[in-house]
Amino acid sequence: MAKLVELNYKVVAMVIGLLLIIEGFAMFLGLPFQWYYHGFELEALTISGIITIVVGAILFLVTRKTRNKNIGKREGYLIVTLSWVVASVFGSLPFMISGWIPNFTDAFFETISGFTTTGASILNDIESLPKGLLFWRSMTHWIGGMGIIVLTVAIFPVLGIGGMQLFAAEMPGPTPDKLHPRITETAKRLWYIYILLTALEVIFLMIGGMDFFESICHSFATVATGGFSTRNSSVAEFSPYIQYVIVVFMFLAGTNFSLHYFALTGQLKKVFKNEEYKAYFYTFIVISVIITIAVVFANNEHVEKAFRDAIFTVISILTTTGFVTANYLDWPGIAWMLIVVLMFIGGSAGSTGGGIKVIRQLLLFKNSRLELKRHLHPQAVIPVKYNGKSVPREVIFKIMAFFLFYIIIFAFGTIIMSFLGLDFETSIGSTAATLGNIGPGIGNVGPVDNFSTIPTIGKWVLSFFMLLGRLELFTVLLILTPAFWRK
Amino acid sequence: MAKLVELNYKVVAMVIGLLLIIEGFAMFLGLPFQWYYHGFELEALTISGIITIVVGAILFLVTRKTRNKNIGKREGYLIVTLSWVVASVFGSLPFMISGWIPNFTDAFFETISGFTTTGASILNDIESLPKGLLFWRSMTHWIGGMGIIVLTVAIFPVLGIGGMQLFAAEMPGPTPDKLHPRITETAKRLWYIYILLTALEVIFLMIGGMDFFESICHSFATVATGGFSTRNSSVAEFSPYIQYVIVVFMFLAGTNFSLHYFALTGQLKKVFKNEEYKAYFYTFIVISVIITIAVVFANNEHVEKAFRDAIFTVISILTTTGFVTANYLDWPGIAWMLIVVLMFIGGSAGSTGGGIKVIRQLLLFKNSRLELKRHLHPQAVIPVKYNGKSVPREVIFKIMAFFLFYIIIFAFGTIIMSFLGLDFETSIGSTAATLGNIGPGIGNVGPVDNFSTIPTIGKWVLSFFMLLGRLELFTVLLILTPAFWRK
Repeated sequence: MAKLVELNYKVVAMVIGLLLIIEGFAMFLGLPFQWYYHGFELEALTISGIITIVVGAILFLVTRKTRNKNIGKREGYLIVTLSWVVASVFGSLPFMISGWIPNFTDAFFETISGFTTTGASILNDIESLPKGLLFWRSMTHWIGGMGIIVLTVAIFPVLGIGGMQLFAAEMPGPTPDKLHPRITETAKRLWYIYILLTALEVIFLMIGGMDFFESICHSFATVATGGFSTRNSSVAEFSPYIQYVIVVFMFLAGTNFSLHYFALTGQLKKVFKNEEYKAYFYTFIVISVIITIAVVFANNEHVEKAFRDAIFTVISILTTTGFVTANYLDWPGIAWMLIVVLMFIGGSAGSTGGGIKVIRQLLLFKNSRLELKRHLHPQAVIPVKYNGKSVPREVIFKIMAFFLFYIIIFAFGTIIMSFLGLDFETSIGSTAATLGNIGPGIGNVGPVDNFSTIPTIGKWVLSFFMLLGRLELFTVLLILTPAFWRK
Repeated sequence: MAKLVELNYKVVAMVIGLLLIIEGFAMFLGLPFQWYYHGFELEALTISGIITIVVGAILFLVTRKTRNKNIGKREGYLIVTLSWVVASVFGSLPFMISGWIPNFTDAFFETISGFTTTGASILNDIESLPKGLLFWRSMTHWIGGMGIIVLTVAIFPVLGIGGMQLFAAEMPGPTPDKLHPRITETAKRLWYIYILLTALEVIFLMIGGMDFFESICHSFATVATGGFSTRNSSVAEFSPYIQYVIVVFMFLAGTNFSLHYFALTGQLKKVFKNEEYKAYFYTFIVISVIITIAVVFANNEHVEKAFRDAIFTVISILTTTGFVTANYLDWPGIAWMLIVVLMFIGGSAGSTGGGIKVIRQLLLFKNSRLELKRHLHPQAVIPVKYNGKSVPREVIFKIMAFFLFYIIIFAFGTIIMSFLGLDFETSIGSTAATLGNIGPGIGNVGPVDNFSTIPTIGKWVLSFFMLLGRLELFTVLLILTPAFWRK
């Protein structure tokens, strides 16, 4: 038998313990709203918070005295994957203990959908939930988004996943040589931006007449590109002003956060010269215009309404947020075919958006164009240029491999879902929407439907896809290979 | 203005001229059947043949005295692409002159569908066509298949398209050092096998009671992996014996022809050790079994009938033939989702089958598995192995780039088709079925439908996709780039 590799499980348990303590306290944050709206009582959030903190504390206290605090690559993968899984298990406690989602499968699906900033829901009547629970539901998005920022800055570049080392070079930082202090500094800086965006959106939403509670919930879901709303019909419920505000903040949340830093420090040139930003911006504009025209002509829709729904839907799907103002499945075929294609683009790297990412698609597109040239000049070395610099061929190779994995998993996903009895469109829609961390898909999981009708096994498979997509595939897949555990 | 590159147009014209002369004479081959079944008359095939020969002869005679007979890479791309286009233009003459397909768009679509061995048809009543025309229709497949064999042996490896240099190394040949004689020798050998397979199938079909005319037509369509039948309901019309015979010959036609050579010369070990062959074989078996089980249980179908329809459909789609015995859209979702996935695999390299090809998918799959290992050992060089040898990383890069192009074109295709008003499934189905040279797709271009209802622009777009797919994308795309024409 092959020998197993020795992993530093203690340090893994310690980090997870710490995370649970934080998660438990985060649950308490919903209590003021719960008490304000429903009166004081010892309720599910309190119990869940205490359980989570106690378990976390035990884990932490038992392991913190370990001398070997080295975190290797393997421990890194394990911590990241387990963080999302364990947080989702404990995060589903409030839903189960309160009895609002008594089934563990459903509660776990809803929670991991929150933490992965997907926004796919199994709830048929969101509005009936007590405010404390709704707050926790939105909170999972916000915590998930914070986690993603750390991963993008600190973990993915080190692990070299799918060309992510490239994006790391893009991050602002005063000490490019010393890795550790730079990472901490960068992560902090991006968190401030994240918090600033959240606060700004709350203010703008409240100016439009949304109450404090719903403003916070929607802001959490926007800046994390999550998509959970407090209303059954999502953002369709609110005024045009509110919808425009959310469009702006979805756009900002899907932008590389280091560009926000550049913008705030007056380096606007760096923003507008950034090729990923340009590709992101023009994709948004061009597809919005096409869809507006299609909807105006085919559905005889009022121009402003069509335009608003188009930009809202396009940026919502592109950034993988998943808020909804219109049923795009009622739009002409070309409109929702474009939306399906958008599902395979995703947000910018270094944003909270999920999916394949704009930069990957951009580099693949550039490489494809050059590939034609390379056929004419097989001897010449023709590198892909990004922001004026040559991209190493090895990075392009890794990005192509990532894309392939994405497509292979997508294909297997549709086969599994259709095996479970879902129709063609729903199989495609549910897989694309969860793997890309979007939320709504097509078919029976479209913008006005939810995932409650998916069979139990299907919910677990889709939960797995959310995790896979959010953690850039490899983090999770590696743990599932025998080679990971062998010496 | 950029200077244009000087191309040796005369030699291009000469080759095309020669090709037209051959095509014209090939048209005459349908006359005996026409006269036998419908009586003697000077008819469309004769006139079309004469026109084609005269035009070809003029082209050839005018250019044959040119001293510079060098065919460079650029001339190579041009000759290959123009061959298929010009042959299809002249090949549509019999349909137009006879008045059976008066519309040029339709006649061209039908003919290029023949020459690219796609088998997508716009005919609503195939059986009403005179036998001479039906023979010509099947003949286009057979000529197309012959063309593909030459391309695979002689042209694609030299042009280095999508990792094709790899398959070239697989070709049998006594003089591996001298390129030219070896290529001619190999091409001839594979043509003999092609002709042998055709003759064998004719005999086996006639043993089953099919008449000589239909046996030839179906054999042409089988060995070329084309798919045109002489019947409206395709092969569903015929006995189980006939269907099993066609299954066997579709399987053989989708196998790398050099493996037939090995088998015929007693080198069976080489066949059964070939990894592409094994992948091809197991894909066929495993998916057939799953579909049989699904159809038996879900549709309560008789086991033998379900099994026969399953193996027939799977090998028909996998080899990109496109013959039909059952409406797979009536099967349970899992069955036709698997068929959609099969559309993206294709036949073996070195066969007449189209699509992405088994070897590419196999190498991509292998590379993806290794990519996980590479993440754990970033310093190690871990090459993909194929038939016991390391595949250069550059070849994997090229195959990934090919796959990406395929997916990008597919995505654009579905957008264009849905823009033309087709629904979601038909947009996907029509693009996948033409780009992969399959024939039937899903939606309104499913196995019991045809392409007659596609709008005119759509027919041209799909004709272009057939050409793209058949010529391994790059051959055609390169000609469309400005860099091709510039110095």
